[in-house]
Amino acid sequence: MAKSAITIRFGKTLREYREAKGYSQEELAERADLHRNYVGSVERGERNLALENIIKLAKALSLPSRDLFRGLP
Amino acid sequence: MAKSAITIRFGKTLREYREAKGYSQEELAERADLHRNYVGSVERGERNLALENIIKLAKALSLPSRDLFRGLP
Repeated sequence: MAKSAITIRFGKTLREYREAKGYSQEELAERADLHRNYVGSVERGERNLALENIIKLAKALSLPSRDLFRGLP
Repeated sequence: MAKSAITIRFGKTLREYREAKGYSQEELAERADLHRNYVGSVERGERNLALENIIKLAKALSLPSRDLFRGLP
């Protein structure tokens, strides 16, 4: 998957929220029932991730999913 | 792709915004550079669509993408 401005922006926002909560990538992955490598690749903007996983990540961060779209069109 | 509460909620919200703008599925599809059948399947909750297409649809509706997450966790 090629990075894009959109996937990069999403990944940065995800990382910011994860770090603000004090979670490691591994902790976030466990909470979201996703693989740690997957979370890392999302944060690096390498994934055009789909709706269900966006919701899983938002829930794992105790955030409304719309907050992950900050800075996106 | 199996429907889920999440894909169904997203599809309903998309349909509501599309109809509020007065676009047909075909018009929205053209504006978003997507196929009409695809837009129909998203609206029926049959697609776990990914980030890039969520942004395309929001742009085509002149909405911030976060608005499409109304009613979702």
